[in-house]
Amino acid sequence: MSLPGARPVRAPRGTEISARSWQTEAPLRMLMNNLDPEVAERPDDLVVYGGTGRAARSWEAFDAIVDTLTDLAEDETLLVQSGKPVGVFRTNVWAPRVLIANSNLVGDWATWPEFRRLEAEGLTMYGQMTAGSWIYIATQGILQGTFETFAAVGTKLHAEGRAPEASLKGTLTLTGGCGGMGGAQPLAVTLNGGAVLIVDVDETRLRRRQAKRYLDEVETDLEVALAKVLAAKAESRPLSVGYVGNAAEVFPALLERHRAGEFFVDVVTDQTSAHDPLSYLPTEYTVESWQAEAAADPEGFTKKSREAMAAQVKAMVEFQDAGSEVFDYGNSIRDEARQAGYDRAFAFPGFVPAYIRPLFCEGLGPFRWVALSGDPEDIAVTDAAIKELFPENEHLHRWIDAAGEFVEFEGLPARICWLGYGDRAKAGRLFNQLVRDGKVKAPIVIGRDHLDSGSVASPYRETEAMRDGSDAIADWPLLNALTATSSGATWVSLHHGGGVGIGRSLHAGQVGVADGTELAEAKLTALLTNDPGMGVIRHADAGYHRAIDVARERGVRIPLLA
Amino acid sequence: MSLPGARPVRAPRGTEISARSWQTEAPLRMLMNNLDPEVAERPDDLVVYGGTGRAARSWEAFDAIVDTLTDLAEDETLLVQSGKPVGVFRTNVWAPRVLIANSNLVGDWATWPEFRRLEAEGLTMYGQMTAGSWIYIATQGILQGTFETFAAVGTKLHAEGRAPEASLKGTLTLTGGCGGMGGAQPLAVTLNGGAVLIVDVDETRLRRRQAKRYLDEVETDLEVALAKVLAAKAESRPLSVGYVGNAAEVFPALLERHRAGEFFVDVVTDQTSAHDPLSYLPTEYTVESWQAEAAADPEGFTKKSREAMAAQVKAMVEFQDAGSEVFDYGNSIRDEARQAGYDRAFAFPGFVPAYIRPLFCEGLGPFRWVALSGDPEDIAVTDAAIKELFPENEHLHRWIDAAGEFVEFEGLPARICWLGYGDRAKAGRLFNQLVRDGKVKAPIVIGRDHLDSGSVASPYRETEAMRDGSDAIADWPLLNALTATSSGATWVSLHHGGGVGIGRSLHAGQVGVADGTELAEAKLTALLTNDPGMGVIRHADAGYHRAIDVARERGVRIPLLA
Ligand SMILES: NC(=O)c1ccc[n+]([C@@H]2O[C@H](COP(=O)([O-])OP(=O)(O)OC[C@H]3O[C@@H](n4cnc5c(N)ncnc54)[C@H](O)[C@@H]3O)[C@@H](O)[C@H]2O)c1
Ligand SMILES: NC(=O)c1ccc[n+]([C@@H]2O[C@H](COP(=O)([O-])OP(=O)(O)OC[C@H]3O[C@@H](n4cnc5c(N)ncnc54)[C@H](O)[C@@H]3O)[C@@H](O)[C@H]2O)c1
Repeated sequence: MSLPGARPVRAPRGTEISARSWQTEAPLRMLMNNLDPEVAERPDDLVVYGGTGRAARSWEAFDAIVDTLTDLAEDETLLVQSGKPVGVFRTNVWAPRVLIANSNLVGDWATWPEFRRLEAEGLTMYGQMTAGSWIYIATQGILQGTFETFAAVGTKLHAEGRAPEASLKGTLTLTGGCGGMGGAQPLAVTLNGGAVLIVDVDETRLRRRQAKRYLDEVETDLEVALAKVLAAKAESRPLSVGYVGNAAEVFPALLERHRAGEFFVDVVTDQTSAHDPLSYLPTEYTVESWQAEAAADPEGFTKKSREAMAAQVKAMVEFQDAGSEVFDYGNSIRDEARQAGYDRAFAFPGFVPAYIRPLFCEGLGPFRWVALSGDPEDIAVTDAAIKELFPENEHLHRWIDAAGEFVEFEGLPARICWLGYGDRAKAGRLFNQLVRDGKVKAPIVIGRDHLDSGSVASPYRETEAMRDGSDAIADWPLLNALTATSSGATWVSLHHGGGVGIGRSLHAGQVGVADGTELAEAKLTALLTNDPGMGVIRHADAGYHRAIDVARERGVRIPLLA
Repeated sequence: MSLPGARPVRAPRGTEISARSWQTEAPLRMLMNNLDPEVAERPDDLVVYGGTGRAARSWEAFDAIVDTLTDLAEDETLLVQSGKPVGVFRTNVWAPRVLIANSNLVGDWATWPEFRRLEAEGLTMYGQMTAGSWIYIATQGILQGTFETFAAVGTKLHAEGRAPEASLKGTLTLTGGCGGMGGAQPLAVTLNGGAVLIVDVDETRLRRRQAKRYLDEVETDLEVALAKVLAAKAESRPLSVGYVGNAAEVFPALLERHRAGEFFVDVVTDQTSAHDPLSYLPTEYTVESWQAEAAADPEGFTKKSREAMAAQVKAMVEFQDAGSEVFDYGNSIRDEARQAGYDRAFAFPGFVPAYIRPLFCEGLGPFRWVALSGDPEDIAVTDAAIKELFPENEHLHRWIDAAGEFVEFEGLPARICWLGYGDRAKAGRLFNQLVRDGKVKAPIVIGRDHLDSGSVASPYRETEAMRDGSDAIADWPLLNALTATSSGATWVSLHHGGGVGIGRSLHAGQVGVADGTELAEAKLTALLTNDPGMGVIRHADAGYHRAIDVARERGVRIPLLA
C-alpha cells in the first residue's frame, strides 16, 4: 500500500535555502529528512518508524506544510494537528516557528480501537516520538541508548564494588536477541570494555551484525564460545561472541555452571522480541518451522513460547539470587513469564528505574544534532569540537570515537550523545559559534528524543516505579512543552502514545536551530538550560536525592527547596 | 475540615504593588482573589468552586507561589504543577510569567479512583477550569452564559422564521429548576425580551431569586401564572413568573394544552439538578419529606426520580414534536430518562451543539476582565468604553446595562461578556489605552474561562457531536496552550477534568495583563487575535461552514483552505 501522492523525498543539501530563513528551512529539511528512504521505514506511507509513526497525515498535508514553511515569516507560527497544518498565527521572534500536537485523545477515549477509528476517518495520525516531530535520526539512537545503558550498569557495579573499574572491563554479560534493536548490545558492551555472550536462535541475525562489525565472532559450539568470552573477561579485554541457540535452554544451562562456581556471569539481560509471543521461538520448534507453526496454531504457539520465556526468566531471577546484575531491557518478558504462571517474574527491575533514572536526575538524556549542510565533514567538526569542550569526559570521548568508526549516516549526517544539565547549553553555544565562525558549512539543528529526563509520563517505561508514586502524573510533559515554547525552541511537539501505545504515555519534544546569530545564542542558552532543567526538577520533586543535590549544586531554582 | 495553615486571604487593592511589576502583581492578586471568602466556596481548604476545584495544592504551596511571584523578574517564568510551584526558569519578556498544568494524568490512569489516590498522596489537585488558573470571577459568569444561550436561541428562532425579532421578544419559554445555576434562567430570558414560566418544587428557591430581582413574580396557582406569562407574550413584554410545582407533572399537563392549541410554548428546557437523582424530586414525595426519603432508601428513591424524569423528558420530546424549540441544558436529564427506559430521550439536542457551537465558529466566547485597583469605578469606565467601542452591538449593550444593574461584585470588581474573533483584540487594546491614559486607576487583567471556542476537548459537553466526529481529539487544547504561550499571555494553564470530571476533558486557559505599556499592547494584540483564532480554525477544520466563512472574511490563515 502507498498513500495517494507518494513520491521519493530527500532533504535539500547545501547553503541555498528555499525558505525565508534558516529558522524555517530547518524544520523543512528535517521533515523531508524524516521521509528520506534511507531514514524512513515506509516513506510512501509517510511512516518513519515504530509501527505507524508518521511525519505527516497525508501527502496533501505534507505539501501544505512545505508550502507554508517556505513562506513563513520570522514572527509567524505554524500549527500542526496530528500531521496536518491547521493554522498560521503572527506571534513573535522568540516563539517557535512550528507548534505540533500529535495523536492526543481525551482520557476515556484513549484506546487503540477509538484511535484506529479516528485515524481511518482521517482525523488523526500516530506521531510516535520523533516521527511526527521531525527529528528522527534513524538507527544511531539505538546504539547510543544501549551504550549508555551498559555504561550505567558498569558505573553501578563499580559503585557497589562488583567491578574493578567504572565500566564493564573485566566483566561478562549474558544476553539474548540480536535483532533490529538487540543487535546493538554486543557493540555497546565491548565499547564499555566488557565481554559478552549473545544468544540468538537465528544464525543469520548474528552474521548480519558481524558483517556490520557490531559483533566480533559467531560460534555454534557453546564450549568454544564460552572459552572465548571467559578468556576475554580474565584478560579484561572487550570481546563479543554470538552463540546460535535458544535462550530458554542456554540461560538455564549456564545458570547451573554459574552456580557450581565454574565461572561468574556478572550481568544478565535479554532483548529477544518477547513482547510478541509469536516472535519468540519456543524450545519445541526450529527456526525453519517457526513461521509455519506460528501460523498454523497461534494460540498453541503462544502457550509454548510463554512457557519457554518463563524458563528463561526463572533462570534470570536465579542468576540474580546467585549474585548477578539482572535487568529487563524493555521487551515485556517479565509480564509474559508471569502470564505463564511464574510468580517471581518481577523480581528483577526494568532498565529505566535501575540505570537510566539516576542519569535523568542530572538532566542527562539524549542530545542530538544534525548538519543541515548534508556534509559529513560538518559532523566530524562537531565531533572534534565536543571532545575538546569536555576534555575530561572519557565516556563521551569513547562514544564519539566509536560513533565515528561504526555509525553509517542515514539521511542528513547526525550525531547523538547523552549530556546533562549545564553541558547541553554549553554544547549548544559551541555549535552556534561554529556556525558563526564558518567552521561548519551551514546551520546545525539541535534536538532530542521525547524519551528524556523531564519530558515524558509513561508508567510502563520512563516513569515506572517513581520514588513518590507519581508515575501517571502527566503535568510534567505538558509543562515541558510550555517551557520549551517559552525558551526559544524553533519547534515544539506534544505527543500521546509513543513507544508504549495509546493510553500509556504523554511526551514532549523540542528542537532548536544554531544559525550563528546572537538571537540563536540567547535562545539556545535558555532552551538547553531549561529543558534538561525540567528533568532535574521533576526528579527532585519525586524525592530523588541526586536530583536535589544537582539542583543545589548547579543552581536550578526550586521554590520549595530553600 | 480546613487545611493546615488556613487563614483569610483577600487580594490587595490600590496602586502600591509588592511584586516587581504589574505583570507579576497581577497573577499574585488573582490567586489571592480566587481565595477571597466572597469568591471561594471553601477558602480554608483552598477550594474555589466546582466540587474540589483548588487554587493551590496546600497553604505551604500557596505561600511559596506568593513568595516566588513577589520576587520574579520580567524575564523569568514560574512553573506550577497541580497547584505546587516546582521551578523557576530564565526565559524572555514575551514568555508567560507563570505556566500551569493541573490534574493531568496519562490516559489509562485517568480515572477518579487513581486521581483520588494521587490526591490523597499529596501529588496532585483538582484544578477545575478557572480555580487552579486564577481567573474565577464568581457567579457573574453563570448569568452571562445563560444570557448568551437564550440570546442564541432567539437568534435561531428568528432565522427560522419562528420569532418576530432576533431575540425572545413575543415568545414563551418553559423551564424547570431555579437553584444555584438554574436561577439565572428567568433573568436571562427577560433580558432577551421574552416571557418565561419557571417551575420549581421548592418555593424558597423561587423567593430567593425574586429577592435578588432575577425573577419577577412567584405564583402557586398555575392558571394565574399562565395567564400572566401569556399576556406578557401577547404584548411582547418581558416577564418571568415562578410556579411552585413538580416539573414531572407540570410539563406533561402543559403539553396537553399546547397540543390542544390553547397556547403555544416556543422554548422548552430544564435545569433541575437531574444529574444527581437524589436531588430531583419524584412526584410521590413532598419537599418536606424529600431528604428523609432519599436517605432512607436511596435506590428506591433513584428509581422513582428517574421515572419522574422520564415523564418530564417524554413531555419535552413531544413538545418538540409539536413545534417547540427544545434543548438539554447540561444537567444529564436525557441520560437519566434513558436509564428509566424511555427510548426517545436523546431526540432533542444538548445546548452546545444547538446554540453555542455557531458562536464558537466565530471565535465567540467568554471574555472577562478584572480591575486590579479593586475600584468598581474602573469597571464602570470599561463598561462605558466597551459600549462606545461597539456602538452597533445592541446585544452587548443590553448585557452591559443589565450587568451594571443586577450583578453584585464578589472579590475584585470584574466584568464578562462574549466577544468574537477581531473584537477581543480591539477590546484588549482599548483597555490597555485606558490604563496608559490613566482613565482607570490600575492595570486590568484580561482572561477567560477554559470553556471557549478553541480551548477544550470534552466529548460530553463542548465538543459533543462535532460535525466530523472529532469530539475526542485532544490536540486542540494543547495547541491552544502552546499558542497562548507563544503570543504574550502572562499566564497559561492546561487542565484535565474540569466541569465534566477526570478522563472526560482537556482544556486550556490564558490571561493577559493590560498595564498600559507598548509591550502589553503588542502582546494583547497577538494573544487576543490568536486565542479566538484557534476557535475559528478548530471549527473550520471540523467542516463548519460558518467558521470557514469567518476565516475567509476576517483573514484567519488556514493552509489547506486556499
Ligand atoms: N529498551 C527499550 O525500551 C526497547 C527499545 C526497542 C525495543 N525494545 C524491545 O526489545 C525487543 C527486541 O527488539 P528487536 O527490534 O531487536 O526485535 P527483532 O524481532 O528484530 O529481534 C528479536 C530477535 O530475537 C531472536 N529470538 C527470538 N526468540 C528467541 C529465543 N527463544 N532465543 C534466542 N533468540 C530468540 C530472533 O531470532 C531475533 O533475532 C522487543 O521486544 C522490543 O519491544 C526495547
Ligand atoms: N449549562 C451547563 O453546562 C451547566 C452548568 C452548570 C450546571 N448545570 C446543571 O444544571 C443543573 C442545575 O444546577 P443548579 O446548580 O441550579 O442545581 P441546584 O441543586 O442548586 O438547583 C436545582 C433545583 O431544581 C429543583 N428541583 C428538583 N427536582 C425538581 C422537580 N422534580 N421539579 C421541579 N424542580 C425540581 C430544586 O428544588 C432546585 O431548586 C445541574 O444538573 C447542573 O449539573 C449545567
